[in-house]
Amino acid sequence: MYEKITGLIDAPFTPMHPDGSLNLSIIPDYAHMLHRNGLKGVFINGSSGEGYLLTDAERMVLAETWKKAIDDLPDFKLIVHVGSTSVMSAAQLASHASELGAWGIGTMAPPFPRIGRLEELVKYCEEISAAAPALPFYYYHIPAFNGADFSMYDFLVAAEKRIPNLAGIKFTHESLYEYNRCRRFGGGRFDMLHGQDETILASLALGGAQGCICGTTNYNALCLNDIQRAWQEGDLARARAQQEFAQDVIDVICRHRGNIVAGKHIMKYLGLDMGPNRTPFQTISPEEDILMKAELDAIDFFAHCNR
Amino acid sequence: MYEKITGLIDAPFTPMHPDGSLNLSIIPDYAHMLHRNGLKGVFINGSSGEGYLLTDAERMVLAETWKKAIDDLPDFKLIVHVGSTSVMSAAQLASHASELGAWGIGTMAPPFPRIGRLEELVKYCEEISAAAPALPFYYYHIPAFNGADFSMYDFLVAAEKRIPNLAGIKFTHESLYEYNRCRRFGGGRFDMLHGQDETILASLALGGAQGCICGTTNYNALCLNDIQRAWQEGDLARARAQQEFAQDVIDVICRHRGNIVAGKHIMKYLGLDMGPNRTPFQTISPEEDILMKAELDAIDFFAHCNR
Amino acid sequence: MYEKITGLIDAPFTPMHPDGSLNLSIIPDYAHMLHRNGLKGVFINGSSGEGYLLTDAERMVLAETWKKAIDDLPDFKLIVHVGSTSVMSAAQLASHASELGAWGIGTMAPPFPRIGRLEELVKYCEEISAAAPALPFYYYHIPAFNGADFSMYDFLVAAEKRIPNLAGIKFTHESLYEYNRCRRFGGGRFDMLHGQDETILASLALGGAQGCICGTTNYNALCLNDIQRAWQEGDLARARAQQEFAQDVIDVICRHRGNIVAGKHIMKYLGLDMGPNRTPFQTISPEEDILMKAELDAIDFFAHCNR
Amino acid sequence: MYEKITGLIDAPFTPMHPDGSLNLSIIPDYAHMLHRNGLKGVFINGSSGEGYLLTDAERMVLAETWKKAIDDLPDFKLIVHVGSTSVMSAAQLASHASELGAWGIGTMAPPFPRIGRLEELVKYCEEISAAAPALPFYYYHIPAFNGADFSMYDFLVAAEKRIPNLAGIKFTHESLYEYNRCRRFGGGRFDMLHGQDETILASLALGGAQGCICGTTNYNALCLNDIQRAWQEGDLARARAQQEFAQDVIDVICRHRGNIVAGKHIMKYLGLDMGPNRTPFQTISPEEDILMKAELDAIDFFAHCNR
Repeated sequence: MYEKITGLIDAPFTPMHPDGSLNLSIIPDYAHMLHRNGLKGVFINGSSGEGYLLTDAERMVLAETWKKAIDDLPDFKLIVHVGSTSVMSAAQLASHASELGAWGIGTMAPPFPRIGRLEELVKYCEEISAAAPALPFYYYHIPAFNGADFSMYDFLVAAEKRIPNLAGIKFTHESLYEYNRCRRFGGGRFDMLHGQDETILASLALGGAQGCICGTTNYNALCLNDIQRAWQEGDLARARAQQEFAQDVIDVICRHRGNIVAGKHIMKYLGLDMGPNRTPFQTISPEEDILMKAELDAIDFFAHCNR
Repeated sequence: MYEKITGLIDAPFTPMHPDGSLNLSIIPDYAHMLHRNGLKGVFINGSSGEGYLLTDAERMVLAETWKKAIDDLPDFKLIVHVGSTSVMSAAQLASHASELGAWGIGTMAPPFPRIGRLEELVKYCEEISAAAPALPFYYYHIPAFNGADFSMYDFLVAAEKRIPNLAGIKFTHESLYEYNRCRRFGGGRFDMLHGQDETILASLALGGAQGCICGTTNYNALCLNDIQRAWQEGDLARARAQQEFAQDVIDVICRHRGNIVAGKHIMKYLGLDMGPNRTPFQTISPEEDILMKAELDAIDFFAHCNR
Repeated sequence: MYEKITGLIDAPFTPMHPDGSLNLSIIPDYAHMLHRNGLKGVFINGSSGEGYLLTDAERMVLAETWKKAIDDLPDFKLIVHVGSTSVMSAAQLASHASELGAWGIGTMAPPFPRIGRLEELVKYCEEISAAAPALPFYYYHIPAFNGADFSMYDFLVAAEKRIPNLAGIKFTHESLYEYNRCRRFGGGRFDMLHGQDETILASLALGGAQGCICGTTNYNALCLNDIQRAWQEGDLARARAQQEFAQDVIDVICRHRGNIVAGKHIMKYLGLDMGPNRTPFQTISPEEDILMKAELDAIDFFAHCNR
Repeated sequence: MYEKITGLIDAPFTPMHPDGSLNLSIIPDYAHMLHRNGLKGVFINGSSGEGYLLTDAERMVLAETWKKAIDDLPDFKLIVHVGSTSVMSAAQLASHASELGAWGIGTMAPPFPRIGRLEELVKYCEEISAAAPALPFYYYHIPAFNGADFSMYDFLVAAEKRIPNLAGIKFTHESLYEYNRCRRFGGGRFDMLHGQDETILASLALGGAQGCICGTTNYNALCLNDIQRAWQEGDLARARAQQEFAQDVIDVICRHRGNIVAGKHIMKYLGLDMGPNRTPFQTISPEEDILMKAELDAIDFFAHCNR
């Protein structure tokens, strides 16, 4: 059994130059900003990071750059998402992450071919995790993105014997019922990382969300951290107020094509220009920028965001 | 603004004779058992009640029978689900419910034709609610059953002006984020009835689940009631233990085709034989009965169930 | 084995008064118009007829009215769609159809509860068909409307022994592969009624579409009939031209919410005012009327439509 | 406007060694076998070729190997599928295909992120096609695999001005109605390659399927070629018999996880061992092998297959 993560891990965006190439130079500042705002690590090259839209070479150079950028940050984890439609690419990325000294790895199910049977998913994870046997391996459950809508409880039953380095699941799905069943599985031996920023408080009540991987912590970490802190202090009113503010922020980004697009754009307001999104995502337009800024102003976001 | 429901409303099964006809004689005992176990009312002819599988005539006689059965029960509400693929049938059922003295009515979206635009749904609710203008009207959100996967927030925006007797929503969907947005809408003026027994505690943390409509309270009301009570008393450990027990029970019924089939069968173990399910549902077989009873035994269900 | 239908059966709209009540008086003229334009019968109370949106009482009076209206029309069949979410209502409608002397009956799968296992569907059809044992029974396959996306080949395998009066399938689905497998099943013993007006010619090439149930024949029967006739005469160029015109007409109705809404409205242009659609469908607005008429004009529809 | 393809293009499997690495040595024999059986080219690295499961390096070496293997085959086209979740990888593969002298390229929509708006899809294709501006570009429509369920007619409207080298669409979807609308678009200026082996005859009747990209031609090309030939000769009975045989073969592979898995395995029976599938696909087991061989025997497949 691995150490269980506590606190919030950030899923960073991938900074790009206006021409779409990687903007690596910004990453050290980015890493320090995240650490300064109370985050406990990064889960890179995932969905927020447009990982699937990068080439394998880009993914590796990003991993190397992040590793260097966080080396002087105490208690700050690097987890690398290595999933790919090519299990062979994924295994190479896993091996690379291991060699460069990442803390852990993770993978979502391939969106293509659509997983038809649970056994296919377990085999896929087995091959990838075996390429980095010394690292904790997290399965990243996000069925809305890849249609892999399996019971995670059944996944744990099938995988626990076959994936020796299975640490847990990043659970990005609305069913707190299933989340809780997995949390309780085998006496609680797996690390269930909560992955929906809008319901952290709800999960805390059930006993979960001790560790989270978050997308909106890139700009709203103070609020999200305070949900956990207020809950631990028994201050339910404050926890609710913070969770409601987090929902208000999420309302805004949902009106503008979600965190990958709207969230990436918000970083510019914080002084960290992440550049454009990669096709097929479409970068926030100047018109949307004006609208979104006004909506964030209306909820007084700029008084509470990361700094 | 209507009175907000507090506590748990039960969604009863529809008792049938072995030949499939209604078994009305059992209803008075059934009603008293529910009241005795702490429930605050019934939401009849809904999904648990196989309402869509009944003829209009059957639905009316059921409403009348339930009305009589609860007349001597203090503070016990009768809410009638009147939804139908025929808006005209639904309006007739609404009018009938009003005349017989029901406390309120509700309707889910018609599963056919599949609602394509929110406006269609609002119009549908408008026509039905207008047939019982003196009663609180609840929209029953259950997209997994009818594909009407609209934002309920948007529904409230569109419906609040057009449905004068709109009291709230029975929210049977996993998104506690959207549930909470609706709960906060307009300063909290709508009654958001929580409709997933497996996450009552999670919702309580957010400020919701003050009122619930439940399917498993037919046999597990003591547990579900105690989630609310323990939470109010600040006993989080007990609330969690009860919610976990509720999930264990739900695990069992999910393995046997859900509450409508497995739950209806469980009632026999409590001494209230509800008879078969109506086609296309398929009644629990003798083999399944043995299996299911053993699974319930294994979680010590019979020591905790309704009595 | 029953007589196989040849030629085109029309799926009529249900005429309504402006207030939404049935306009029965128009039905004799409607029936004669359909017969005059070469149709071989009607399949009433189906999807085009808004059957699921009618009360059971309305469905029965419609069946009676159609029966009387066609009594003097030679070789003109009355098939009654009796499907309902209540298998008991459906069986009553089947029995009623039999008693009044309909030629056959049919039912689609209930949209609610969503059929989960093929056995549930077979059982549902078994109970309904048994209520009219002397009539040919057609299963109406339209998965886009009810999510009952089962292999119809597997359905025939499962149903052939259990439904003695199973005549065939109205196949309203794009897969001509599966259609053809069913057509060849058991040496071709089942009547496979083609149910997509846009691909009659494609199906004829495979050996199918000898009999069809059509929605656009209400206004475009001359064209659709001529696809079959041209094919039989070996005039492929004419068959293609007619099929392409049929597709042009379908293009127009698809731009205006399909046959149930746009098609019903088109009847007014032919002198048979069908009145409004029933909620949740929304009747063509005056603005859409102008647009649609212009689009029909642009393809010279009014020179070719029914008269 | 580009030359329109006539006849059948094969979508080859990717040969692998038992350890999962590429088995390039078999490709020259494979290419000659395909040519000998009347095929007009290959569409490599597509779904049959497990293209998305290969690394970029593997895809490039495959393209190079196929190019060399077909250099002496007259009138035999090489089309390279270059699609990737990374538009940058896809553009690199397109550029590589162009440099090595491929005849054309194609791409399906990325399965991740799921395309939400048609504009995203057009932009994605625009960037890729621009990397090989001298080659005909085909969009590969296969919504069952990637959820990109857009109207292809609307795609042509949006893309025709923006993708100068747009040659047409490989249409792998059941709707012959939409296929035909696209075939007729702009006076028939786009090459609509039919992509469902089970309905070639149906499409021929509508005027389509002059050119096809096929998956089952790897082993059943003689039959599929003869559908086109018999149709051209006016021998409808033979065309039907061949189409029915093609369907019988497809019935078998559908019972064993489709062409990618079952079809790849069938090649061994023809003397061309393609090796295993790549994870998450699961290679046919010895038990399935026995079953499948018997099913193929029962339809006398081995007397008709490629040789």
